[in-house]
Amino acid sequence: MSKDLGITSRGENYADWYNDLVKRADLAENSVVRGCMVIKPHGYAVWELMRDALDGMFKATGHVNACFPLLIPKSFFEKEAEHVEGFAKECAIVTHHRLTSDGKGGLMPDPEAVLEEPYIIRPTSETIIWHSYKNWIQSYRDLPILINQWANVMRWELRPRLFLRTSEFFWQEGHTAHATYDEAEQESLTILDIYRRFAEEWMCVPVVAGLKSDGEKFAGADHTYTIEALTQDLRAIQAGTSHHLGQNFAKAFDVTFQSAEGKEEHVWATSWGVSTRLIGTMLMAHSDDRGFVCPPRLAPVQVVIVPIGRADDRDKVYAAADSLAGSLQATTWSGAPVRVKVDKSDKSPGFKFNEWELKGACVRIELGPRDLESGTCVLATRLGAEKQTVALGEVVSVVSAVLDDFGKQLFAQALELRSANTRRVDTWEDFKAAFAGEGGGGFVMAHWDGTGETEERISAETKATIRCIPSVPLDPGDEKPGKCVLTGQPSERRVLFAKAY
Amino acid sequence: MSKDLGITSRGENYADWYNDLVKRADLAENSVVRGCMVIKPHGYAVWELMRDALDGMFKATGHVNACFPLLIPKSFFEKEAEHVEGFAKECAIVTHHRLTSDGKGGLMPDPEAVLEEPYIIRPTSETIIWHSYKNWIQSYRDLPILINQWANVMRWELRPRLFLRTSEFFWQEGHTAHATYDEAEQESLTILDIYRRFAEEWMCVPVVAGLKSDGEKFAGADHTYTIEALTQDLRAIQAGTSHHLGQNFAKAFDVTFQSAEGKEEHVWATSWGVSTRLIGTMLMAHSDDRGFVCPPRLAPVQVVIVPIGRADDRDKVYAAADSLAGSLQATTWSGAPVRVKVDKSDKSPGFKFNEWELKGACVRIELGPRDLESGTCVLATRLGAEKQTVALGEVVSVVSAVLDDFGKQLFAQALELRSANTRRVDTWEDFKAAFAGEGGGGFVMAHWDGTGETEERISAETKATIRCIPSVPLDPGDEKPGKCVLTGQPSERRVLFAKAY
Repeated sequence: MSKDLGITSRGENYADWYNDLVKRADLAENSVVRGCMVIKPHGYAVWELMRDALDGMFKATGHVNACFPLLIPKSFFEKEAEHVEGFAKECAIVTHHRLTSDGKGGLMPDPEAVLEEPYIIRPTSETIIWHSYKNWIQSYRDLPILINQWANVMRWELRPRLFLRTSEFFWQEGHTAHATYDEAEQESLTILDIYRRFAEEWMCVPVVAGLKSDGEKFAGADHTYTIEALTQDLRAIQAGTSHHLGQNFAKAFDVTFQSAEGKEEHVWATSWGVSTRLIGTMLMAHSDDRGFVCPPRLAPVQVVIVPIGRADDRDKVYAAADSLAGSLQATTWSGAPVRVKVDKSDKSPGFKFNEWELKGACVRIELGPRDLESGTCVLATRLGAEKQTVALGEVVSVVSAVLDDFGKQLFAQALELRSANTRRVDTWEDFKAAFAGEGGGGFVMAHWDGTGETEERISAETKATIRCIPSVPLDPGDEKPGKCVLTGQPSERRVLFAKAY
Repeated sequence: MSKDLGITSRGENYADWYNDLVKRADLAENSVVRGCMVIKPHGYAVWELMRDALDGMFKATGHVNACFPLLIPKSFFEKEAEHVEGFAKECAIVTHHRLTSDGKGGLMPDPEAVLEEPYIIRPTSETIIWHSYKNWIQSYRDLPILINQWANVMRWELRPRLFLRTSEFFWQEGHTAHATYDEAEQESLTILDIYRRFAEEWMCVPVVAGLKSDGEKFAGADHTYTIEALTQDLRAIQAGTSHHLGQNFAKAFDVTFQSAEGKEEHVWATSWGVSTRLIGTMLMAHSDDRGFVCPPRLAPVQVVIVPIGRADDRDKVYAAADSLAGSLQATTWSGAPVRVKVDKSDKSPGFKFNEWELKGACVRIELGPRDLESGTCVLATRLGAEKQTVALGEVVSVVSAVLDDFGKQLFAQALELRSANTRRVDTWEDFKAAFAGEGGGGFVMAHWDGTGETEERISAETKATIRCIPSVPLDPGDEKPGKCVLTGQPSERRVLFAKAY
């Protein structure tokens, strides 16, 4: 535990480190409602930046937003067999629409206000949306439908963790409808690529994009694509998924269209989503024992200016700090004005330095009366590079360059961690050894015979699961045939195994 | 009913007109979930523009966003007596957290998964937020807290109407905490002014800002401010409210702070919100028998370009239309790029003209081969001004001017309607006559003796309620004393009466 910061070190206890980090960086906290979090302003600002960036990428590819109801009639759930199997065990059920006096000074659900049919708080919206689409789609002219919604969803969690797994979470869910299998396939891959680019370019987190095994696909999908990242404790984290739903939901909700050739056919579908889990992914990829390390494009505060010096000099220093902040705010970096804060709170400079390291400001500028005399300031980065003295007139260009480098360095570090912890394993002994103990074990590329039975046995014995069959091989050799690491049966190619969050 | 458009006329049946309008303008529709709507992409685009504008105004006044849980423990509701009275009768109650097989091939709430304490889907979040604030506030240094959240809320509606009154709706709710009564008062007035400016400058809807009577204030507030607009059927619509909560919630949740003088005091609070009801307000203020008339700053499509002519000329005309659209998109109007669409669908020009009148494009540009030859295009506005021929090189500046005028004209029309339908009434006979029959009756400024009893009698006999005590008098004479229109008792000033949505 770093006493000054109140954070357990990663080496000491990674799970405690994560919880301390989320709390001390003032991102979120557990609420009194089981498994639900309160996202605090600093954490919500990160989510807003993520949302706006992704929303822009979706709109640039022809998608529009809409909003469907929070509640789903129970009977809708029953219509797609795999889907209900996947979600019935963890849902919040609305049964009454009124409270009444319990006769003891309190309230109770009114027995006379029982709903005829219970509603489920959406864990995902395929069913309610495809019920609407039935009325929206008659002909091929009505296709494609390319709709996304930003929404809260609920899946009852027995072991919640802030951002990673909460009962209520925030996400976007795209739900598209198409005339052909191929068009839906193209859509699911377009989105997969948006997710990959967002993870790599905005979050600075390298991901492996690929196909899920049948055992790991979405409940109700034909097949699922995923992006998988590696955390610092060497586990995989699924950061986003894009599903080709085939005609499963169209059949469950009887949604057909008349094709250009005049034939009545079931509609093809995709769905796809990323959630507030992205924040957890980003935290686990980059942050350190001193707090939040935030990729610059997603940092609510990219530059913090800390005024230094005695009370006598305060007005002068504050004025210079405000002026510097103004110059930075007037500058565009990566398509948006630089986000700057001048910390005028009545705390000591040392306290502020720690606080902004905790909260993930990328760049810190220290500015005092002596700096003003020399026309300079002192610039430090959250990545711990040596402090540099910068002429005030050059701060804007230096900050731009530092933010550029910051993102590149974060990505390079994360890629290096992944490269150093991705192994090719060919024997069952080595495989078990890779995942022995409580630790993560990293990424293991191994051969698999393609059966669900083998997948289950491997998972039962090692806790490692197939994270994906990579779309682009990490190494060309991964696509050569071999023998299953467990059964010795023929295998077409290596797949990615890891213990997962 | 305009047969070509599928909209009942306002004169024929205003309620049917409204429903047809929402449907035919493709803004929203009723869902299968009781009282809940589906906001379709065109309607949601309007909401996104509203949200972004308001969010900017909140942030410019120091507010930040956060997110609190969707669910509220039942016991929290019981803590503030007026609050629970106001909301217990119309809420959705979660009682189970798992479905299980009902033994007949279907599902039922699992009797073994009953929640120990039921949860309420938030109808508003004061209780859950003040429970959090208790942990966030110790000293005056922690104040003020200026938090807003954009969220969905639920109030079970027996007579839902799209946008105006739906079981689930979308809103922002601000929840602020202050060290003094006066600071909270200032906050509630700052927000009231933001709401007024948004209504007038963005929605082009004149509103009367003022104080609610005790009978109409928010359940749990010390006092409530409101903005009230007039609809075309001469009813009032409450478009936004800002509440000074006194110390009511701080006391209910035991939230105290140590003042600068070292005393332990309860915290002062405000809350405030506007919702998707704003869309209904805007529709009722401006739209006509041909569809949606949308204020330009909130129009998803400000300019639609309709290519005209035979198939032979198509490529040439499309290229010119795209080029014109590009010039417009590269232009900033009212702080954002002009929102343009080129309608290349395979429908007839006449069909497209109707469609875009229905959907509220402010400006229509018709462009055909003969226009190209003469280097011009034809420009029409949704307000029915005479079509003008405009040189292609001047379209950008003409569009800017037309959009400016469009907003001014909308506001002027709405203000004229209000002026023509605001009366001062001094006798009970005239008052009853003003509100007789099924119609709206407009705004009536009348004297009231200030008692809840009189307020209730007036409402019971005429269906008119006190909408507000205006902050700024509509007429200076309104603030002179007089005699209550019902009882003849002394009255300090006139107040605003109307039948309300």
